[in-house]
Amino acid sequence: MNADFQSWARDCQSRLETFLESQLAKTDREPARLHSAMRYSVLGGGKRVRPLFSFAAGALNGADAERITVVGAAVELIHAYSLVHDDMPCMDDDVLRRGKPTCHVEYDEATALLTGDSLQSLSFQLLAEHQVADSAQVQLAMIKQLAQASGSRGMAGGQAVDLDSVGKALTLPELEFMHIHKTGALIRAAVMLGAQCGNRLNEEQLTQLDHFSKCVGLAFQVVDDVLDSEATTATLGKTAGKDADNDKPTYVSILGVNQARELAESLRRDAFQSLESFGDAAARLRQVTDFIIQREF
Amino acid sequence: MNADFQSWARDCQSRLETFLESQLAKTDREPARLHSAMRYSVLGGGKRVRPLFSFAAGALNGADAERITVVGAAVELIHAYSLVHDDMPCMDDDVLRRGKPTCHVEYDEATALLTGDSLQSLSFQLLAEHQVADSAQVQLAMIKQLAQASGSRGMAGGQAVDLDSVGKALTLPELEFMHIHKTGALIRAAVMLGAQCGNRLNEEQLTQLDHFSKCVGLAFQVVDDVLDSEATTATLGKTAGKDADNDKPTYVSILGVNQARELAESLRRDAFQSLESFGDAAARLRQVTDFIIQREF
Repeated sequence: MNADFQSWARDCQSRLETFLESQLAKTDREPARLHSAMRYSVLGGGKRVRPLFSFAAGALNGADAERITVVGAAVELIHAYSLVHDDMPCMDDDVLRRGKPTCHVEYDEATALLTGDSLQSLSFQLLAEHQVADSAQVQLAMIKQLAQASGSRGMAGGQAVDLDSVGKALTLPELEFMHIHKTGALIRAAVMLGAQCGNRLNEEQLTQLDHFSKCVGLAFQVVDDVLDSEATTATLGKTAGKDADNDKPTYVSILGVNQARELAESLRRDAFQSLESFGDAAARLRQVTDFIIQREF
Repeated sequence: MNADFQSWARDCQSRLETFLESQLAKTDREPARLHSAMRYSVLGGGKRVRPLFSFAAGALNGADAERITVVGAAVELIHAYSLVHDDMPCMDDDVLRRGKPTCHVEYDEATALLTGDSLQSLSFQLLAEHQVADSAQVQLAMIKQLAQASGSRGMAGGQAVDLDSVGKALTLPELEFMHIHKTGALIRAAVMLGAQCGNRLNEEQLTQLDHFSKCVGLAFQVVDDVLDSEATTATLGKTAGKDADNDKPTYVSILGVNQARELAESLRRDAFQSLESFGDAAARLRQVTDFIIQREF
């Protein structure tokens, strides 16, 4: 990872953190416990991968940094809410997230439920109240895209398939279907919304970008599975080996570690091909892709 | 309740039901169990009080029925999601809703969690993808209002205060604060969004309407508490006496039944006063108010 990318990523992350901090209610505002849990679940942790994709996509067409910050924050709030709910006892029942106790452990289950609910509302609030596109019409289209990516035909739907898959022998296409929704939909939204903050891209460019984001979304999950199978809880910051313990199918359990790594590599090549026509403008998108694919490889 | 109102309300409810049915994914679409649970939790039940307020507010300024149907559906989806989550074991732990087993009983807790999450996403999706106002700018403002009414400074925040109040001796102002958020915020959104579907109201009219909706939101809760203290489970369609059993403060526990009834009546008078300048155009709003206040009195 080169110094230029690191410095750019730190700048994006810092903008995002400052904005999120300013938009989450302070802990002295009632209901204080809920507001405290919301801040706990969002601030000071995570690699902010999805916002980085928004910033990188915005670099394709000179989008304004303030607009992308709002979009990145909206996507990250959806991601944060999904983690809070996903960790709850009736879902994955996990106690550790980003090296800290999960929300329902630090607070309580009811607060965790309301925290996730409120973070989702806040995401749409931000996207509606700040100008993120040249026209209000485009902004409405962006809200629609994020809502679709979050709902039953997107992220939440992928989680439902995931739950249903425990103890089942999924085929590779079935596993792919699950992850395209569970992880892929939101990464795709992060890329596509980031790109819509600036000058309009043409249809062909949007199609290529869409294909890029699908490849990257899947690659992200494949890498996650490899890391989960190899890492220790300490380096991962969340409970390691959880999926295998839960008898959940993963890319590693179906393909083995080596083939899973190869799949990630081939998805990376496919993703990069989709960016060719953008030339140097896509440099940041390539860097963020390498950042997530080469994490610990 | 006169026949004209009944016929109007049935027409509104039927429009709403048809629209919701068309917007919820069919149960043969994957993930089928989640889509089935979403339909189960939304369709075929409830008085649709909030959408009725939207329709009645839209009647103030000749708003298009199709637009109000979308707004009413968006508000009702937020309400439906909140019921699904509120009934879960970590919250109110209720097994009966609208005379049927609650979502987590009929399906399972994880599915109920994802059902609520997905219904919230769908609400914002509908409000972003259908034209509900003359300008996209107004539409963005409406999305912002619904998001605020749903989040930590609105409905979800009220639920957090509610949870925190179990076993505590609340004062009347504290109880009011809770209900203004828990129930009032969404009723207020239903009224204000309905009014924004049509021709613009001036600032003074919006202020009066806002005051009306606050009074009505509180009155609705006071009546709920009276009904809960008097009704049987069979007539209520949900577990009766639940709040008293849970040692939750209610208007009845603080004021007694008679004074609670008087409070509802005084809120009704206050609400009607705010409508005076609208004249006959506010007839539907008065009728819906009487419909919810006089329910079983």
